[in-house]
Amino acid sequence: MTKEMQDLSKCAVHTITTKPWSIETAIDKYASMGIGGITVWRDTLTGRDPVLIGQQIKDAGMEAVALVRGGFFTYTSADEQAKAFADNRLAIMEAEAVGAPMVVLVCGAHPGQRLEESRNQIREGIEAVLPHAEAAGVTLAIEPLHPMYADDRSAINTMKSANEMAEYFHSPYVGIAVDVYHLWWDPDLEQEIMRCGKNGNLTAFHVCDWRTPTTDFLLDRGLMGEGCIDIPKIRGWVEKAGFKGFNEVEIFSKTRWEGDQDQWLKEIADAYLKSV
Amino acid sequence: MTKEMQDLSKCAVHTITTKPWSIETAIDKYASMGIGGITVWRDTLTGRDPVLIGQQIKDAGMEAVALVRGGFFTYTSADEQAKAFADNRLAIMEAEAVGAPMVVLVCGAHPGQRLEESRNQIREGIEAVLPHAEAAGVTLAIEPLHPMYADDRSAINTMKSANEMAEYFHSPYVGIAVDVYHLWWDPDLEQEIMRCGKNGNLTAFHVCDWRTPTTDFLLDRGLMGEGCIDIPKIRGWVEKAGFKGFNEVEIFSKTRWEGDQDQWLKEIADAYLKSV
Repeated sequence: MTKEMQDLSKCAVHTITTKPWSIETAIDKYASMGIGGITVWRDTLTGRDPVLIGQQIKDAGMEAVALVRGGFFTYTSADEQAKAFADNRLAIMEAEAVGAPMVVLVCGAHPGQRLEESRNQIREGIEAVLPHAEAAGVTLAIEPLHPMYADDRSAINTMKSANEMAEYFHSPYVGIAVDVYHLWWDPDLEQEIMRCGKNGNLTAFHVCDWRTPTTDFLLDRGLMGEGCIDIPKIRGWVEKAGFKGFNEVEIFSKTRWEGDQDQWLKEIADAYLKSV
Repeated sequence: MTKEMQDLSKCAVHTITTKPWSIETAIDKYASMGIGGITVWRDTLTGRDPVLIGQQIKDAGMEAVALVRGGFFTYTSADEQAKAFADNRLAIMEAEAVGAPMVVLVCGAHPGQRLEESRNQIREGIEAVLPHAEAAGVTLAIEPLHPMYADDRSAINTMKSANEMAEYFHSPYVGIAVDVYHLWWDPDLEQEIMRCGKNGNLTAFHVCDWRTPTTDFLLDRGLMGEGCIDIPKIRGWVEKAGFKGFNEVEIFSKTRWEGDQDQWLKEIADAYLKSV
């Protein structure tokens, strides 16, 4: 185990993981635990000045790792397309303001629209907002989503597919977010992670676990160690591929959100040290 | 549209699709509708002589397309392994007795066991029972399952993975069951279906649909046409790859099982003619 994995300096937590907390509370609690990074979900910024929130994160001794989320580039009308572009430009501005170097993209899909067509629209969408990302110094991180989200969340469902998209742009401002929840089952995962790193596209690493049984398509993710994903193995691949960033904990769990959040954060920290 | 797709002669229905019905009722109802094939789930044979059921299927003018299901070859003890072998030998005998030329395999997975290891155990399992399948003239059809079932149902989650397994055996008694529900999202599906046909391994084609939202991991499959899967496109690929067998309707739906089964079967027949 590397020295960094013995403390929480390389651990980041997504604000959605402790959804009941405000961003101010999350910053205080994470920092007091020694967690090094925070990934900011946009809903937490409502009614706040993102520049001030960014300053609070710095003052607490943490880094803003990413802003979540942009994307949803697929459309069935010109109006929808224009709205998607505008929302992504806004996300890039928010990321810059909060001091996060990256916007995570959930790329989008439309039930009944061919996935190939959705991928064309995603490519158009990234192309349209990439100049804004470059100007802001913010990387757009394509997150391949589990195939069970191919109907209405993302038409990019494997590392191979994400690699192809990122390689099309070949830009320092387009990257890929590897999330073990979405990708753990893929027999080609190791080789596609290596390809991703080799091409300089590996920009984020997300952890959580897959519970058996999983009872909800969205809100039943597991804490690291309580499911079937071999997270250290995948972390090993990601690091072998050259990744040196944060290990971001992103857990949507209705059950956990209903419990005591201080206790939950303690469990997250323990699980991070034991099972990531 | 080919002439065969204008009637139900190439349509088969899995008995699980009309779960409330006994096998005898299913045979009568399917046959009176003009449905050409029936795929027999093993639970319907409880307390019956499979040879007599097979005769009833023939007398009704139908074909027994497959027996469902064998597999679950993964194990964590020698005892579990022995039980899996025994159960698969039994499935092969039941298929032969009922006159079905094929056993569909849900191959198995164990939470926490590496998928590579599970695939090794699956290979061992098929190897162990293949002589029985050959002797009975029954084909073992590997069914790749959706990645959302990789924790505890199957470590074979793509056509590529199924192709690799089938090609390892290179036997007329090992094939692959293509189910649109499990595979529709895969960007490599067309090429892997062609590879499958070219190698003589394409032995079954299952249809249903993916609902948005899907509310249950197992029991919320959709009727053809009520979801996002382009079934005719995939059927086109399968036929281009040389498949000439039945289009098998396999739908697990708690909601549909609670309704009137005669009405449900009519809807299935209509949906088959319109959306397969």
